Amino acid sequence: MTLQAPYDPDNIFARILRGEIPSVKVWEDDHVLAFMDVFPQSEGHVLIISKTSTARTLLEIEPKALGRLIGATQRTARAVVKALEPEGFQIMQLNGEAGGQTVFHLHFHVIPRWSDRAMKGHGHAPMADPDTLRALADRIAAALD
Amino acid sequence: MTLQAPYDPDNIFARILRGEIPSVKVWEDDHVLAFMDVFPQSEGHVLIISKTSTARTLLEIEPKALGRLIGATQRTARAVVKALEPEGFQIMQLNGEAGGQTVFHLHFHVIPRWSDRAMKGHGHAPMADPDTLRALADRIAAALD
Repeated sequence: MTLQAPYDPDNIFARILRGEIPSVKVWEDDHVLAFMDVFPQSEGHVLIISKTSTARTLLEIEPKALGRLIGATQRTARAVVKALEPEGFQIMQLNGEAGGQTVFHLHFHVIPRWSDRAMKGHGHAPMADPDTLRALADRIAAALD
Repeated sequence: MTLQAPYDPDNIFARILRGEIPSVKVWEDDHVLAFMDVFPQSEGHVLIISKTSTARTLLEIEPKALGRLIGATQRTARAVVKALEPEGFQIMQLNGEAGGQTVFHLHFHVIPRWSDRAMKGHGHAPMADPDTLRALADRIAAALD
């Protein structure tokens, strides 16, 4: 899979957006969806995607959709910090297989960090229990401004 | 150093912005500066910072400055891809010491990736030769749209 390729309408995030696959939602509006990563690299790992753009990577996304996505990422990060009180957090956005991208619908990661807990490698974390993710999502959603 | 702390006007990026410390510039405008990371995690590692915001982390930055910064990050990533033809790239934005942040002036990383080359750990890469960085910056700048 190269950086430049057509959008696959059956990628897993497109299927989540169409309601064909369940996800543990944190929040959404008309433009974006924030949901729990089912392979969390740390507790409270959230993904943010555009509902309107079919950009695969950062190279392709329209300025307005990108602005909304980073704004939604900031809003989500603030809620994660308020709810879970991590010592730090990482924003990651991966492009191309060589860049670690596994789903080819552009997404931002919010990954809480604690100095005494190791972060699991991207693509190497076990699948999380849905009830645990739901409880985390509820705590984060309750902390949204 | 916690997530919430005052901005230190003597952090290294503030000093670069004031011209007190040299940097290898890729491009700039009135609002942003893109320059080569002197501890590159891969060839062509560029940092993008706001000239106008004194946000330490993503939690603090104003919407307009954030929009400009992610737009500048996209513009830089496109030029990096055009100039260096990596197979992929990573966008990283680190917050707090526990999140891996080492300079407390908010910045985005553009890190080119090739499947057959390992990425050096953040904070574990050797300092690059300034002439090598200057040559890379010139190639990236020449590829800007």
